[in-house]
Amino acid sequence: MKELKLALIGFGNAGQAFAKMLLEKEEEVRKKYNTRITVVAITTKTRGNLIDAWGIDLDKALKNVQNSGRFDKILGFSENSTSQSIVDKVDYDVLVELTPLEFSSGKIAANHIRGALKRGKHAITANKGPVAWAWKELTELAERNHCRFLYETTIMDGTPVFNMKRGSLRLCEITGVKGILNSATNYILCEMEKGRKMEEIIEDGKEQGFIEANPANDIEGHDAAAKVAVLANVFMGADMTPLDVECEGIQNITELDIKNAAEKNAVIKLMCRIEKDENGKIRGKVAPEEVDKKDIYASIEGTSSVLTIQTDLMGTLTVIEEAPEVQQSAYGIFADLMAIVEKD
Amino acid sequence: MKELKLALIGFGNAGQAFAKMLLEKEEEVRKKYNTRITVVAITTKTRGNLIDAWGIDLDKALKNVQNSGRFDKILGFSENSTSQSIVDKVDYDVLVELTPLEFSSGKIAANHIRGALKRGKHAITANKGPVAWAWKELTELAERNHCRFLYETTIMDGTPVFNMKRGSLRLCEITGVKGILNSATNYILCEMEKGRKMEEIIEDGKEQGFIEANPANDIEGHDAAAKVAVLANVFMGADMTPLDVECEGIQNITELDIKNAAEKNAVIKLMCRIEKDENGKIRGKVAPEEVDKKDIYASIEGTSSVLTIQTDLMGTLTVIEEAPEVQQSAYGIFADLMAIVEKD
Repeated sequence: MKELKLALIGFGNAGQAFAKMLLEKEEEVRKKYNTRITVVAITTKTRGNLIDAWGIDLDKALKNVQNSGRFDKILGFSENSTSQSIVDKVDYDVLVELTPLEFSSGKIAANHIRGALKRGKHAITANKGPVAWAWKELTELAERNHCRFLYETTIMDGTPVFNMKRGSLRLCEITGVKGILNSATNYILCEMEKGRKMEEIIEDGKEQGFIEANPANDIEGHDAAAKVAVLANVFMGADMTPLDVECEGIQNITELDIKNAAEKNAVIKLMCRIEKDENGKIRGKVAPEEVDKKDIYASIEGTSSVLTIQTDLMGTLTVIEEAPEVQQSAYGIFADLMAIVEKD
Repeated sequence: MKELKLALIGFGNAGQAFAKMLLEKEEEVRKKYNTRITVVAITTKTRGNLIDAWGIDLDKALKNVQNSGRFDKILGFSENSTSQSIVDKVDYDVLVELTPLEFSSGKIAANHIRGALKRGKHAITANKGPVAWAWKELTELAERNHCRFLYETTIMDGTPVFNMKRGSLRLCEITGVKGILNSATNYILCEMEKGRKMEEIIEDGKEQGFIEANPANDIEGHDAAAKVAVLANVFMGADMTPLDVECEGIQNITELDIKNAAEKNAVIKLMCRIEKDENGKIRGKVAPEEVDKKDIYASIEGTSSVLTIQTDLMGTLTVIEEAPEVQQSAYGIFADLMAIVEKD
């Protein structure tokens, strides 16, 4: 029986859902791949850190966090470690980076990934920062050290985006990309169509937990711009950062704009676009656009998202993720982990 | 340099587009995989058969067919062979089955595939007959003989459907499927919405070549039912044939039906559905349905198609292929071939 040791950096909603999926799939993975997966470290910002070379009891850790909001000291609680010290020193095989995105630079998460790859450890990230800000460097580092750098969850959760690029589309050149990739703004625009005011939608959304406490990064398009940088890098080899993406959010969209669009039988959507200009330079853009109601993009409602990929050989392919739950993020991380197990 | 020898059974539009793609990609495949791909046999119904153990000159064969509609006798022309004798006797590594679907049984194509797999040769089919009528038997035969049986092109051309099932979705259970999978009927319904009569649309479509001379198999839903059987078999292990699919076509849809739907803000689409009933039995169905204009499915226009896959872990995923050309079919066959080259 092979053993694969994981270190989880971050244990929020996605991390906890991933831990549950590991528990559910434990026996299947053992049988199918003759592999035992253990979690040897979990680091968090406010819940404490756990280290246990023999494998953390995930069921206990989950109950712990649910009951008290913190890890119990008996579980392998580590007083003096930091996320980075765990990345650099603990004996693991796969780092799973699950911290939230820092919009300004993605540095903290990139440092975690860099630390793992430098040691020849595989790295999976659900945080798009490292892919948006340092894709080329980290990809080259992983290649040099013969380890994997995977990030399926960063775009459309577990929807096979990068898996498809590695698989079915590996023989194509991707010539352009468009999408609706930020669910908070799509939700807000859909609600505005019903005649509600943006401020009111945002306040309600915050209360219900699907709009962030500080929604500026969504509203102003920065989250979408980070996704554009990720896709431009991975799909088209752009070596771009979010700062290179022309970015306009929905903060200036008024009820009148929505009404004017409706009169033209259109809706407003926050569109992401990646194109090659006439000089072959790859350009990324985020901006609100009027979309005809007959267009597939007009039917993308609420928290659903859509991605369209133009290729040289495979024509135009569109993928839609309908109203995802946190389990889909967990599945994306799990699919990356299985790609490492299967050497896929 | 490894060599991979192909036998092409059928050389219509898809076969010729595939031959062109082989020529275009020849050097890339040599460099990337250290593999030389040669075509050692091509069989056709009316153009003659070619056999050449040294590799047929594809460029000449293509020009030949374009210029005279038949193969030249100098090219390796075989007077006495049949498709089945070539399947059974010629020395090839991969059989590529490209004959048109026989709706009644899929037998001829299944015999070709069976013949190849029995000899331990890989088989790729763009003909959905063998997958609709004999998936279980042929899959088991391929496993026993350690060879591959691949059929990406049978649903939505080269769109990664089965590739995704083998790849990203391999850890999920697929719990239901729906789709608009027959482009002729979708085109007819879209044109009827514009106020045109079905008979007139069919006559025009025949002239322009995107509706078959005998359109009954499309109009009556048999083509869609064969696709439902393919998906039920491969995605849900159903062991179903097209005869098990409940099937109603669009032959009885009138201008009044279209008008009545429009009054409810809906359109009529020929829907394919696969579901498990309360006893766990898998049921396939093809029937016209009214679809609300706000639904994504209402935006699938003309010859585009759409497939939605419900899964246990990955939520609901929708894939759209926009107005495909014959090149997309060629790409599906080529992707299957590369899966064999890469042992993916």
